[in-house]
Amino acid sequence: MTENEATAPTPPSRLRGPVEVIGTGLLGTSIALACRRAGIEVLLTDLSPEHVRTACGLGAGRARQADDRPQVVVVAVPPDHLPEVLVEALDVTRGTDAVVTDVGSVKSAPYNAVRHHPDVRRYVGSHPMAGSERSGPLAAHVSLFEGRPWAITPHLDSDVEAVETVEELVRLSGAVPVWLTPHEHDRAVARTSHVPHLMAALTAGRLATAPATHLALSGPGVRDVTRVAAGEPTLYGQIVTANSEAVLDLLGEVRRQLDQVMTAIELGDRATLEGVLALGAAGTRAIPGKHGGPARPMQSVWVSVPDTAGQLAKLLADAVESEVNVEDIRIDHDPARPVGLVELVVEEVRAEHLLDSLEARGWTTHR
Amino acid sequence: MTENEATAPTPPSRLRGPVEVIGTGLLGTSIALACRRAGIEVLLTDLSPEHVRTACGLGAGRARQADDRPQVVVVAVPPDHLPEVLVEALDVTRGTDAVVTDVGSVKSAPYNAVRHHPDVRRYVGSHPMAGSERSGPLAAHVSLFEGRPWAITPHLDSDVEAVETVEELVRLSGAVPVWLTPHEHDRAVARTSHVPHLMAALTAGRLATAPATHLALSGPGVRDVTRVAAGEPTLYGQIVTANSEAVLDLLGEVRRQLDQVMTAIELGDRATLEGVLALGAAGTRAIPGKHGGPARPMQSVWVSVPDTAGQLAKLLADAVESEVNVEDIRIDHDPARPVGLVELVVEEVRAEHLLDSLEARGWTTHR
Repeated sequence: MTENEATAPTPPSRLRGPVEVIGTGLLGTSIALACRRAGIEVLLTDLSPEHVRTACGLGAGRARQADDRPQVVVVAVPPDHLPEVLVEALDVTRGTDAVVTDVGSVKSAPYNAVRHHPDVRRYVGSHPMAGSERSGPLAAHVSLFEGRPWAITPHLDSDVEAVETVEELVRLSGAVPVWLTPHEHDRAVARTSHVPHLMAALTAGRLATAPATHLALSGPGVRDVTRVAAGEPTLYGQIVTANSEAVLDLLGEVRRQLDQVMTAIELGDRATLEGVLALGAAGTRAIPGKHGGPARPMQSVWVSVPDTAGQLAKLLADAVESEVNVEDIRIDHDPARPVGLVELVVEEVRAEHLLDSLEARGWTTHR
Repeated sequence: MTENEATAPTPPSRLRGPVEVIGTGLLGTSIALACRRAGIEVLLTDLSPEHVRTACGLGAGRARQADDRPQVVVVAVPPDHLPEVLVEALDVTRGTDAVVTDVGSVKSAPYNAVRHHPDVRRYVGSHPMAGSERSGPLAAHVSLFEGRPWAITPHLDSDVEAVETVEELVRLSGAVPVWLTPHEHDRAVARTSHVPHLMAALTAGRLATAPATHLALSGPGVRDVTRVAAGEPTLYGQIVTANSEAVLDLLGEVRRQLDQVMTAIELGDRATLEGVLALGAAGTRAIPGKHGGPARPMQSVWVSVPDTAGQLAKLLADAVESEVNVEDIRIDHDPARPVGLVELVVEEVRAEHLLDSLEARGWTTHR
């Protein structure tokens, strides 16, 4: 592990540690690694001693001892166990100022579990918008949260200091804090995460038993739509169940619109069908862009790149020598050929220059 | 434009040209460019003289004259107009051996339009699995089809020579031919393209009127699920309508399973919910992989990369000097930070070596 200036976080002032992480899965271990990077002591707890050993081996901290006194407790257990573990965390730290937070995907259920606890002021919920199709401590990495939104969900009785401490934890992990109430948070993630996941699963389910000749026509589109459905079914079952109210509201909207679409297709009612498609297109434009700023006009430049070591690096080096900054790269997952098509996304005003320059350097571009 | 050995197609023997392209949009103009690359004469026809001029300006061919005699006619018009233009193409070429094909997204409707035509033997349908959220001749590029599946859908009365000529057109464009009957093709694309598009649109539609605080929690997952819904509503309305039977069959399955999911969430019936999610996960594994071959085990290596010119190229160059071939790159679209997280996908057996080597060269990796 090396460090460079660009990723060094602002030093925290309230968050001194030790930080106890309960649950050393993907999220818990990644948070522990981020705390360790900042020099903060980390205590690890998990029902599985093997997970704790693995996380310790990764440099995420040490196993918690009975007499340890954490300043902050991060509960990072699966949604089904979250309410009980949160209550226990507040109980165990009675009489201290320990801040208790959690990183569960749903925020109303854990808040409801502790709202009548005498120490509820020490609890502030949170939820990093990061994850992976993989799970467990070995999937963790210190920059899992880099640049990602991380919701902080204070309630009416939250101590200001507790909220500020959680904010420091968020910033120390490289994430961008977003403040919401627990209720609004749950409505937001139903929309941006849970319902999209279910829709991806329903779409992917149609492929599971499809003939191979049908699947041979799969392009990048269906891969994109279904990708998140690869996530762990048990975990997503827990998440969706814990947010049932908001998810069912939205699924009700989806179902009404699906019925409209089916009737429109049957009747050849093109206006209704196009209306639903146009609403979808508007939805894709509503998602905030990279860097959150106003979108600069971008253009794609396509280049053929032989699928052998070094060619992609050479292409990027040539783009740099052309003094064009590559904002994004997409490599086409072609099903059968040894030549890849690489899409370089650059500022529109620089695209023509890049094409000329790459061609002069012998690349096959595609105008 | 430059050429290199790796992309040079096998020279065609049946396909000599001229090739007439009717409809100089994204697909038609891209096919024309691929023919021109192979030295074949291309005649361009479009209701819009401006589109023809633009395509000519791109080097896609010349405007068709009344006395031109095409060897192959490629009909690349929107689905609504496809049947009539196909019939006209067969009529106009009566008494010749001209092969007529089309590149429409649906194959039963055009076949039904010409199946009783006296010259139906000269017609063979086809459908390249390529496209873009953009449209028109300016969006065309010569390698749009590189490595993509391209369905060829012969019928019982197709001439063998016509089928072989279309196959040569497919290979010349860099695509991989996949043979299906028109009926099976339509069932396949309903599953791998039309229904995924509608599901993406229904999901994205929920974002169109969402509060900004909800959208601030958007992560890569929802972007992936909704990306294709950015496509042109009128065009997709035509495509879905032309394939109504197969699309409605699948949407019926989706709707039944959506009902199951909603009931399961309401009742807390976790087994049913997990069953649907597990079927979705199985579906994602059913999609064929890159290069179509057996999957080698891959591992991701994460590296922090400052978002300034040259850093990405330097990273790739360092990977090359480490003698590790990068199979895929993903750049995280972080909403607010000037440091990107880059995921390099490499063979599992080389990942540890790459991490060590990049760290030794001063990169911030994330284990």
